[in-house]
Amino acid sequence: MRDELMNISLECIASSLPEGIDAALIISNTNRKYFTDFTSSAGYLIVTRKDAFLLVDFRYGEAAKEKAAGCNVIVFENLRSCLRDLIDETGIKTIMLEGSAFTINEAERIDRFIAGTGAETVKSSELDDIIGRMRIIKTADETANIIEAQRITEKALADTLKLVKEGVAEKDIALELEYRMRKYGAEGISFDLIVIAGKKTSMPHGVPGNYRIKPGDFITFDIGALYNGYHSDMTRTYALGYADEKQKRVYQIVYEAQQKGIEAVRAGVKCCDVDSAAREYIYQSGFEGFFGHSVGHGVGLDIHELPAVSSSSETVLQSGMVITIEPGIYLPGEFGVRIEDMVSVTADGCIDLAAMPKELIIL
Amino acid sequence: MRDELMNISLECIASSLPEGIDAALIISNTNRKYFTDFTSSAGYLIVTRKDAFLLVDFRYGEAAKEKAAGCNVIVFENLRSCLRDLIDETGIKTIMLEGSAFTINEAERIDRFIAGTGAETVKSSELDDIIGRMRIIKTADETANIIEAQRITEKALADTLKLVKEGVAEKDIALELEYRMRKYGAEGISFDLIVIAGKKTSMPHGVPGNYRIKPGDFITFDIGALYNGYHSDMTRTYALGYADEKQKRVYQIVYEAQQKGIEAVRAGVKCCDVDSAAREYIYQSGFEGFFGHSVGHGVGLDIHELPAVSSSSETVLQSGMVITIEPGIYLPGEFGVRIEDMVSVTADGCIDLAAMPKELIIL
Repeated sequence: MRDELMNISLECIASSLPEGIDAALIISNTNRKYFTDFTSSAGYLIVTRKDAFLLVDFRYGEAAKEKAAGCNVIVFENLRSCLRDLIDETGIKTIMLEGSAFTINEAERIDRFIAGTGAETVKSSELDDIIGRMRIIKTADETANIIEAQRITEKALADTLKLVKEGVAEKDIALELEYRMRKYGAEGISFDLIVIAGKKTSMPHGVPGNYRIKPGDFITFDIGALYNGYHSDMTRTYALGYADEKQKRVYQIVYEAQQKGIEAVRAGVKCCDVDSAAREYIYQSGFEGFFGHSVGHGVGLDIHELPAVSSSSETVLQSGMVITIEPGIYLPGEFGVRIEDMVSVTADGCIDLAAMPKELIIL
Repeated sequence: MRDELMNISLECIASSLPEGIDAALIISNTNRKYFTDFTSSAGYLIVTRKDAFLLVDFRYGEAAKEKAAGCNVIVFENLRSCLRDLIDETGIKTIMLEGSAFTINEAERIDRFIAGTGAETVKSSELDDIIGRMRIIKTADETANIIEAQRITEKALADTLKLVKEGVAEKDIALELEYRMRKYGAEGISFDLIVIAGKKTSMPHGVPGNYRIKPGDFITFDIGALYNGYHSDMTRTYALGYADEKQKRVYQIVYEAQQKGIEAVRAGVKCCDVDSAAREYIYQSGFEGFFGHSVGHGVGLDIHELPAVSSSSETVLQSGMVITIEPGIYLPGEFGVRIEDMVSVTADGCIDLAAMPKELIIL
C-alpha cells in the first residue's frame, strides 16, 4: 500500500519505476519542485514504490515541513548517514539517478556514501524520459503559473516600448525590460532576453549589444519571465519610424505562417504536422532556406521541454500541453522577423496564451 | 613537440594529464573560458598531450576563430562525426571527461557518439582536481577582472545606499542594486544578491523579501558582480537611524575579527590558520556558537572555488590566490553582522581588493 501522503505526481512516478528499480533519486530544482511543489535550491527527493522522502539541510527544514507536498521530510546534518539509514529502513537495493541532473562527480559521491550498504545506483537517462513524459501535460495550476509569467512579460513590454526611440541601445532596452519584469513580480527572466535591432534581427539568437536603434530598423523582442518556477516565452518584431515594402511583405508572411501553425494545433495532431503547416507556408512564399529552426517547443518548469514542435517530431499533441509557435524569416545582412506565442492545446484547437497584438506595429 | 599555438594554461593541462589518459574533454563555460579566453555558452574543448581543439557550432564559428587562444577551432555541423574524425586523426584512445560538468546523460551521449572508434571515455573527478589546482593561482589579468567586478559593485552600492530609508523593502533595494551593477557594466550578478534587514540578518543566507526596513535595523548586503566572466564578493552591514550598544559591540567584534583574519593572510600560511585567527577572536569575545560557517573561500571564474578558508583546510596560501575573509556573528531572533572583503595573497601579506569603509556606518 502506498503512503497516504503521496500526491498524484509522486504516485505516478512510483508506479512508473522500471522493473528491477526500487527507487528514484531526484535532485534537479525543477523536478523536486514538480513533485513536491516545494521550491528550494538544494535537496534530495527519493521515491520508492510506496513512499517518498525529501532530504533537506537545516536551511530548508522548517519551510519544507510546512510546504512540501506528498512526502516525508527529513532534515539531515550528514547526507551520508542519512542515506545509509534510509536504505536500511526501506530495504531499497537499486536507486536510479536523475541522469540529466547528476554530474559524474555527484554520482561518484553518492556511490561513495552508500558503499557497503548493499544498495547501488543505476546511471541512465531512463528516469528523465519517464519524468519528461509526465511533465509534458500541464495541470491547470501549472498553466496558470505560465499565464501569470506571460502577463508580467506583456505588462513589462508594454511599458518598455515607450522607451524605444532612435539612438537607444539594444542592451539598455533589455535591461529596462528585465527591471520592469522584476518590478511586476517576476522571480527572474526565463532566459537572457533577446532585444536586437537592424541587421542583427537576421540572427535567431542574437545578443543585445551597444547598437543604437535607428528609423527603419526592425526590433525583435524574444522575451520571457519566470513566475513560481514557470517560464513564459514570446517574440514580437516591431519597426521604428517606418518599414519598407520588403519588410512589410516578409512580416506579413511570418504573421500568416504563425496563424497557420496555430490553426494546425489540436489534440491528436502530430507535432511535425504543426511544424509543417507554418514551414510550408514560408517555403511556398519564396523563403525556403531562410527559416532554419523548428516551429516550437514545450514550455513549463524549463524554458525548453517536451514536446519538440519540429519536422522530425512524431509526438501527438494532447490537451494540456503548452507549446510555442514561432516561425521566422531571416535574411542575412538585411533583417529578420519572428513572431511567437505560447498556446495551450485543447481537444478542439488551442488557447493562445499571449494577448499582445501581432500585426506590424510601427513605433 | 607541442603545437605552437598552445598557450600556457593549455600547455599546463596537457602536461598534467594522468598516466594512461590521452586527452581531456572540457565542456563547462568557465573552464573553456579559462583555457581559451573565449566566452561562449556551448563548445567542446579537447586537449591532447600536444594539441588543443575547440569544437563549436555555427553560432560561434567566426568569433571563436578570431578570439579563441591557443587552440585549433573546428566548426562542426554534426558533433558525432566531428568527434569520430578527430579521434581518427589524433589516435587518442582514452578521453577523460570533466566530471563536474558532464551529467550522466551527456556522458552517455559522448559514449554513444564514439562507440566503435576504439576510443573510450574515463569518468572521474580527477580532471577537476587538476584544473582546480591550476585555477587556484590567478594571473594578473584574472585579478584585474576581479578588481573591475569589485569596483562596479562598490559604485552600484554607493548609489543604492542613498535609497535605503525607512519603509523600503529588502527586495526592492536588491533589485535597484542589481540594476545599477548592470548599468555600470556588469554582465550580471555573482549570485542572488543578499539584502536583508532586521531579525533576518541573523540568517547567513537569508533571501530578500517584502520586509520593510525600520530604524534600528541592521541591513546586510552580501553582493557581487560579474565582469568578463569573473566574480566579486563583498559583505557590508549598515544600521538605519541608530544602533544600540549590543549592536555596536557585536559589530566591533566582527570588524576586529575580520582584521585579524586579513592580518593572518600571507603566502606560506595554511588556510586553517587564517580561519582560526578570525574565529578564535570571535569565540574569545564570548560568541562561540554564533559563527557557524567558514571564514572564506577562493573567488574567480566561480564564486566559490579553491581554496576553502576553513578550519579543516590544510591548503597553504600562495601569492596570486584571491580569497574572501568574511567572519560574522549571528544571534537568532536578534540580528547578525558579517563583514567581507576579497584579498589577493602576496609574499608579505595581502592586498585588500575592497575599498569601501568597514567601520559601522549609520545610514
